[in-house]
Amino acid sequence: MRYAACIEYDGSEFSGWQSQKGDIRTVQSTLEYALSKVADREVQIITAGRTDAGVHASHQVIHFDSDAPRNVFAWSRGANRFLPKDVRVAWVQEVDSEFHARFSALARSYRFIIHNASIPSALFRRHVSEEFRPLDIDKMAQAGRVLVGEHDFSSFRAAGCQAHSPIRTILEFELTGDGQWIWFDIKANAFLQHMVRNIAGALIEVGCGKRNTAWIGEVLAAKDRTKAGITAPPNGLYLVGVDYAAEFALQTQIAQISYWGR
Amino acid sequence: MRYAACIEYDGSEFSGWQSQKGDIRTVQSTLEYALSKVADREVQIITAGRTDAGVHASHQVIHFDSDAPRNVFAWSRGANRFLPKDVRVAWVQEVDSEFHARFSALARSYRFIIHNASIPSALFRRHVSEEFRPLDIDKMAQAGRVLVGEHDFSSFRAAGCQAHSPIRTILEFELTGDGQWIWFDIKANAFLQHMVRNIAGALIEVGCGKRNTAWIGEVLAAKDRTKAGITAPPNGLYLVGVDYAAEFALQTQIAQISYWGR
Repeated sequence: MRYAACIEYDGSEFSGWQSQKGDIRTVQSTLEYALSKVADREVQIITAGRTDAGVHASHQVIHFDSDAPRNVFAWSRGANRFLPKDVRVAWVQEVDSEFHARFSALARSYRFIIHNASIPSALFRRHVSEEFRPLDIDKMAQAGRVLVGEHDFSSFRAAGCQAHSPIRTILEFELTGDGQWIWFDIKANAFLQHMVRNIAGALIEVGCGKRNTAWIGEVLAAKDRTKAGITAPPNGLYLVGVDYAAEFALQTQIAQISYWGR
Repeated sequence: MRYAACIEYDGSEFSGWQSQKGDIRTVQSTLEYALSKVADREVQIITAGRTDAGVHASHQVIHFDSDAPRNVFAWSRGANRFLPKDVRVAWVQEVDSEFHARFSALARSYRFIIHNASIPSALFRRHVSEEFRPLDIDKMAQAGRVLVGEHDFSSFRAAGCQAHSPIRTILEFELTGDGQWIWFDIKANAFLQHMVRNIAGALIEVGCGKRNTAWIGEVLAAKDRTKAGITAPPNGLYLVGVDYAAEFALQTQIAQISYWGR
């Protein structure tokens, strides 16, 4: 039987998603340990997208196969019993054997949060990126628009990126701000390694006036990673959704995360 | 010279505000260490309100006296250099020698955040109180209204509370919700020990249907701590403001904290 599951995690104390050799704390190995305990046999998981060290997820999607006779509630409750508090299984459901968390995914959505103030936040230090230089939100929003659509994102790709092609399609881009806080939401069919953080780093250079709004388009056209500048830190980055075809009938996001209210 | 300062802290890894004997990590001792390093002589601080272990503050106010020749920027920048990342000094300003962080305070404001879902939040586990039983927000809001005004809050007072009188005046009470999140804002001239958490615990008992809306008024009238039920955990509680007379010309809150946006 194949199962899909939705996972929430605080990336602060994980060395990223992907399992590594040695005694390294990763989300994948932590989840596989918990699910294997529930199944009482080995469970391997496939993810919609591997996140970097320090990157969070409110809505990551995985799938796994198991012949262990467990219902979906036994899977989710059992896994949560064996998981540390910084990872939770939101739901587990049975899916068609053709469902694949990575290859069936049509789009991934990320949110990046910037705290733009002279003094870093004590309360939210693990959950936001800090930028002390005053940022011009309108310029950042304007500059980012050029990224929407299908492009060669070589300029925003990590040197070690394993992807076959640098072509990706950004489906949505929205940048808004409120006082000290700036957040941008970006949705693409898929992302290259460090792509969101490299875009964030470039937008910050425009926002602080070091570059003009046309510069992002020039960087994109250059198809050269050395042009784009710094990679923003991971703390402010969240995987917030993964889209699949309706035929797979996956549950939608249950974690609503504007927890502070107004 | 007397100085006032605004402090933000994440209470998760502190054993509360107040200094204790031995090697206990408290906000007060951490701040006094940093300010004493800046002054190069001992600095003692007075707070508007001592918070419990695990309770956060986006806007705590302190004062201290020092004859060290430092300007306000040297105080705040210097202190932040010697402070761990979970405490920040938002601002320091010179104040009249009659200003007293505790005795001049006219009111304190707290926010309490409840995550009402069957599965605890991985991302916000340090910053919210969890309640898995479905809560009726309208009933909680209605039930809490009886607390507004001047009352004897003995029923909502910790056994160890040192306050001379159990009489307090609740100036504002507002409870709202959005999906899985419930937050209530409460402002009083002052609070007894555990008063907000005991009120939160009582409101939760109404919200989950264990008690009716009139019960809070009965508990209040009883003036008996054994009647009010459980003390809610500290994780969801934030000191968000302290009011002083306009003549002291204190800066207002600079930390705007709805960081997740909409």
